[in-house]
Amino acid sequence: MSSSEFDLIESILRSQSLRRDDVTLGIGDDCALLDVPQGMELAVSLDTLVSGRHFFPDAAPELIGHKVLAVNLSDLAAMGAEPAWVTMGLTLPDADEEWLAGFMRGFSALSSNYGVQLVGGDTTSGPLTVSLQVHGLVPAGKAIRRSGARPGDLVFVSHTIGDAGLALAMLQGRITPTDELQTLRQRLESPQPRIELGIALREVATAAIDLSDGLASDLGHICERSQCGAVIETHELPLSDAVRTLSDWRLAVSAGDDYELCFTIDSSRQERVTQLSKELDLRLTCIGKIRQQPGIDFLSSGGSCESNLQGYDHFPESDS
Amino acid sequence: MSSSEFDLIESILRSQSLRRDDVTLGIGDDCALLDVPQGMELAVSLDTLVSGRHFFPDAAPELIGHKVLAVNLSDLAAMGAEPAWVTMGLTLPDADEEWLAGFMRGFSALSSNYGVQLVGGDTTSGPLTVSLQVHGLVPAGKAIRRSGARPGDLVFVSHTIGDAGLALAMLQGRITPTDELQTLRQRLESPQPRIELGIALREVATAAIDLSDGLASDLGHICERSQCGAVIETHELPLSDAVRTLSDWRLAVSAGDDYELCFTIDSSRQERVTQLSKELDLRLTCIGKIRQQPGIDFLSSGGSCESNLQGYDHFPESDS
Repeated sequence: MSSSEFDLIESILRSQSLRRDDVTLGIGDDCALLDVPQGMELAVSLDTLVSGRHFFPDAAPELIGHKVLAVNLSDLAAMGAEPAWVTMGLTLPDADEEWLAGFMRGFSALSSNYGVQLVGGDTTSGPLTVSLQVHGLVPAGKAIRRSGARPGDLVFVSHTIGDAGLALAMLQGRITPTDELQTLRQRLESPQPRIELGIALREVATAAIDLSDGLASDLGHICERSQCGAVIETHELPLSDAVRTLSDWRLAVSAGDDYELCFTIDSSRQERVTQLSKELDLRLTCIGKIRQQPGIDFLSSGGSCESNLQGYDHFPESDS
Repeated sequence: MSSSEFDLIESILRSQSLRRDDVTLGIGDDCALLDVPQGMELAVSLDTLVSGRHFFPDAAPELIGHKVLAVNLSDLAAMGAEPAWVTMGLTLPDADEEWLAGFMRGFSALSSNYGVQLVGGDTTSGPLTVSLQVHGLVPAGKAIRRSGARPGDLVFVSHTIGDAGLALAMLQGRITPTDELQTLRQRLESPQPRIELGIALREVATAAIDLSDGLASDLGHICERSQCGAVIETHELPLSDAVRTLSDWRLAVSAGDDYELCFTIDSSRQERVTQLSKELDLRLTCIGKIRQQPGIDFLSSGGSCESNLQGYDHFPESDS
């Protein structure tokens, strides 16, 4: 790309209208300068999305812009952090103005929703890759970690799981597409980060994680870090009608890209979760229990038990 | 890559021994948790380096690991910020353990030097790309910006400039390689971020920038942001014997990758800069003056004047 093309990109990146008071200096210097209020901890997470691996190369740029930010915000949600700032490293094969404008529309719509300001970035020429770092704020000591689950805690999950995995299976031709594909596809391409839930859970959850690799794998991370295991009741898993009809709970726990929250609570706090579900108008389902013994067992209502369900590897066929 | 290969990568990333007290939570959760002390501002910068564009694909992994961090730390240096934490997005074509161990050796040697802790990251499969975000701390209001230069200010540059550009020209066959190539190559592949200088300049400089795209281009950014121009005396430019003999000042001001600091001071502070040069054992050369009139003029001792010298575009032949 020529330097004028980079100027074009810079001007599009700068086009966002959001201005936060705690940004002392935004895009345009060697660094951005940010003001972290006293008593708050800074929560940061960096994710890279690669074309063909995390999104289809021909996906609408609006959806890519949305998803890149959504999956990063989802990491903040899992810690109970409030989103504040974001920086972006954008590697583009060419300076396609239309693509870039679409990408920024998707990105900006979501960033405005959560009051997140783009404060810096870097544009380079190369294979389409987006690296994003989100910065959130959480009262010191109040972040929800993966390591706090204790035997006897109840395991919850938000909304439904498996829809994104089913959409992907249809798009990849592993399951025959049906009329539901359009709705399911939204769940894959336009995930909603559960920011409000994460913030509300600061005072309730003992541990939390966002579901990016699938429940089996991600709950596994909580168990590993908390040195415990879990028993999941498969008939309690919140599945959409489409997942229930066209597939089953195995897909729902092994497919990724849900970006729902999985969290654990002390069993005495169950009523507060019921209340939260009403306040946020968001389905929160108790799906099982934490136990001392390592590993995760999936129990059916008939009494059969399955273990060792691996997390789903996105687009495995494109792997080297 | 398989999940066990990702585990390998994670374990190598975690292998660093540095532990900072202000890292509440490091690698291994949805976010890292960081403690910004009261009275300090957070300075952040994200840079992406792409194989074939910012480094040769067959470069030694130690050198890539060093350079990726060095160019990021250089942005902190230009603001006068003290390095604290770093996050890394690593996209790799395959899980080459030997390459990765070398990369981490180069990275860790430099991060240990400056007490910078790797607190988070993301590894993905794809074309070799490294995105790094550095986080530095600077007393509130004390960061050096690009926008503070005033007519009459003196323009300084650290060490020598053009050596990296000459090395690149030799490696690309644009200039016939000589015995000096090995020494020059170090300047290209193993730049030293001027952190101590940047911190010392907080109380001295009116503006600063690090030289990544070449003096003409980077000083141009200071002028643009400060709404002024500059006159540079070409015979004052600090050139190594190699650059002086094998090329000339035009290469030195248009080639990039120096990662030296260019800064401006009020003319009354010149003695302090002389003192700093001794304290840091680092050459600091006055090369010209800021003026009101926009644009940069390069004046020779013979009285001739050249303008509009563009910054150098790295590896332009590999561009699309």
